[in-house]
Amino acid sequence: MPEISNKGKSMPASPIRKLVPYAEKAKKEGRTVYHLNIGQPDIETPEIMLSAIKNADIKTIEYSHSAGNESYRKKLAGYYRSYDIAVNPENELIITTGGSEALLIAMMSCFNPGDEVIIPEPFYANYNGFANAAEVIVKPVRSFIENGFALPSVKDFENQITRKTRGIILCNPGNPTGSLYSRSELESLKGLVLQYDLFLLSDEVYREFCYDDKPYVSVMHLKGIENNVVLLDSISKRYSACGARIGALISKNKELMNVALKFAQARLSPPTYGQIGAEAAIGTPAAYFKKVKKEYTERRDFVVQALNEMEGVLCPKPSGAFYCIARLPIDNSDTFCQWLLEKFNHNNQTVMLAPATGFYSSPGAGIDEVRIAYVLKKEDLKKAMECLDAALKVYPGRTVSLVQV
Amino acid sequence: MPEISNKGKSMPASPIRKLVPYAEKAKKEGRTVYHLNIGQPDIETPEIMLSAIKNADIKTIEYSHSAGNESYRKKLAGYYRSYDIAVNPENELIITTGGSEALLIAMMSCFNPGDEVIIPEPFYANYNGFANAAEVIVKPVRSFIENGFALPSVKDFENQITRKTRGIILCNPGNPTGSLYSRSELESLKGLVLQYDLFLLSDEVYREFCYDDKPYVSVMHLKGIENNVVLLDSISKRYSACGARIGALISKNKELMNVALKFAQARLSPPTYGQIGAEAAIGTPAAYFKKVKKEYTERRDFVVQALNEMEGVLCPKPSGAFYCIARLPIDNSDTFCQWLLEKFNHNNQTVMLAPATGFYSSPGAGIDEVRIAYVLKKEDLKKAMECLDAALKVYPGRTVSLVQV
Repeated sequence: MPEISNKGKSMPASPIRKLVPYAEKAKKEGRTVYHLNIGQPDIETPEIMLSAIKNADIKTIEYSHSAGNESYRKKLAGYYRSYDIAVNPENELIITTGGSEALLIAMMSCFNPGDEVIIPEPFYANYNGFANAAEVIVKPVRSFIENGFALPSVKDFENQITRKTRGIILCNPGNPTGSLYSRSELESLKGLVLQYDLFLLSDEVYREFCYDDKPYVSVMHLKGIENNVVLLDSISKRYSACGARIGALISKNKELMNVALKFAQARLSPPTYGQIGAEAAIGTPAAYFKKVKKEYTERRDFVVQALNEMEGVLCPKPSGAFYCIARLPIDNSDTFCQWLLEKFNHNNQTVMLAPATGFYSSPGAGIDEVRIAYVLKKEDLKKAMECLDAALKVYPGRTVSLVQV
Repeated sequence: MPEISNKGKSMPASPIRKLVPYAEKAKKEGRTVYHLNIGQPDIETPEIMLSAIKNADIKTIEYSHSAGNESYRKKLAGYYRSYDIAVNPENELIITTGGSEALLIAMMSCFNPGDEVIIPEPFYANYNGFANAAEVIVKPVRSFIENGFALPSVKDFENQITRKTRGIILCNPGNPTGSLYSRSELESLKGLVLQYDLFLLSDEVYREFCYDDKPYVSVMHLKGIENNVVLLDSISKRYSACGARIGALISKNKELMNVALKFAQARLSPPTYGQIGAEAAIGTPAAYFKKVKKEYTERRDFVVQALNEMEGVLCPKPSGAFYCIARLPIDNSDTFCQWLLEKFNHNNQTVMLAPATGFYSSPGAGIDEVRIAYVLKKEDLKKAMECLDAALKVYPGRTVSLVQV
């Protein structure tokens, strides 16, 4: 039998995936499982997007331009303009099949096998998969729950630099941390990027989810490093349209965009219906986002407060995205998350969480942390938090004794 | 400015793409350009597929399973069963974002950087792009216009084998040749595949387009090499739905499918609307395919006859797909195809062809050949052939003198 590739053998498995069979078993046993483990929002896709797809007058579902439909690229440039990001839709913007493809094409276009990229951890676990596919080595730089997962200092980044370092990848607002980087945090990286001639890739798919009137600052707003900056985007979260598979790869670096387009040409085109929907979705009324943001703000406030009221739990209040990371009084988050599904039962309910270990690449990091996606309606979040509270009280691997009242 | 990757620098540019600006210029000048250069069929997508998408009852466009919707995978297994291909929809089938993604994931899963794969040339030019992305080296084995691009002999394949050889890639029915491999041709490769423990990847996206009652034989029909075989598929041509971006990766090799699924998980899911349409399209009535096949047979018969009636032109009659390769009495197919767009004018019309050089990787091969996609209606094909005939008579780089009548 022929052997599979080393790349195949080293493809990382997500710790969340390992839990899926336990969740299925729990459901078969009749328990309700509250899914706080995934980034699949329950929010409805804007009607304007759904109806554009319904009403599309298509007789033959043809290939589009490899960089995406011109009409969509032009409107999308207008969308970015509203965020003070100037993009030429002709040659600085490629529509991709989700943010995933934007990441893969960017990694393949920017980095050689064996090159190193620095990523603040905890980070989105699939970055490991794309790095593996592009044979890029991820060097994590720790961010910490104690200061709300603020951007590590320039010195911390610089400590990770070797002669192989070719880039930095950020996620802002951040999955899984919910952290939102300030202008001064981002500005601090400029010197480093120029000094070591690094690509600065930034995944900003959660820009619509910034809370407490804190400003969204894009790497595209930074002056003087335009040729180093690559913006990775997706409409999945913005319009609650994960299955449309529409994203974007943006850069002012013409040489980079030329090769990115060749990768895009090899795969022919992004999906037709997703593009039609995405183009229409640009006309989504402001009221939609206002409502969604209000909803998420309330969910966040509820979940973070509930978590911090549990004995021995620490959860910084995130300023963006729809995730938070909580430190729990537990021995091992993988074991705990499995136990929740396998053994725990609270009024015939339980909760599925993401062990934070999957978001760190430093060994042992995140062992007592979980990621919680607040993507359920408030009444379900309430029940889920009650479950978690009850679970922590009886979990055999609890590390901090409960105060006897 | 940071440098782009070597992989980026070596991404091949298609010779067809170089012609696009000339075609645009010709249109701006008011000339009609008959596009015989692309594989975008003019055939309408089955109504059952279009209306399934129109009527989809979706409120939130969610991620699907990374291997594709279970309901679609089950129905698709039924479709393959009708071709005597047994596929377990649970773990032998992954829905991909077009045949392109199936190819990329297969190459990354099967081959290590530096591994060699043997491909009969001329071959689909984008194989070069995916090979470059996976850092796989393509070793071409020549097939020849004189025998209708029949599968090269086992000896010819074996001559290309080195200690780095890990696979063979076939396209059957073939783009760009239109050749259809017989059972005995395919059976002849089995010994080689087993002896050298090779993966045998087969791109069979044109199986609905086999003419003259010649049978379609899949690599999945070969007995005894099940763990070596990988089927790459797409609905793009079958249902004239190129923009749906739905394909499939199929293998009985469980280890391979496990790692392919990890690559699929990293990119989350294939497109929702494409899957809904593709699932419905399985119910396309037989009459649709009968009509399409009749149409293509007539187009093929017309084009091949017209070509062979031109002085100095050789065009074997293809048995599958909707392409043919013609040898023309010209010095250089790149120059000729550009000249057609830039300089030639026949009653305010011209024709765009694909230089065959882009389908060969042996230097100099295909210099007097072009690929013609017969994807236009007959009246347009007639005008296009008249154009080509007139062009060949006046092209300055003509290599064979016209017989004076």
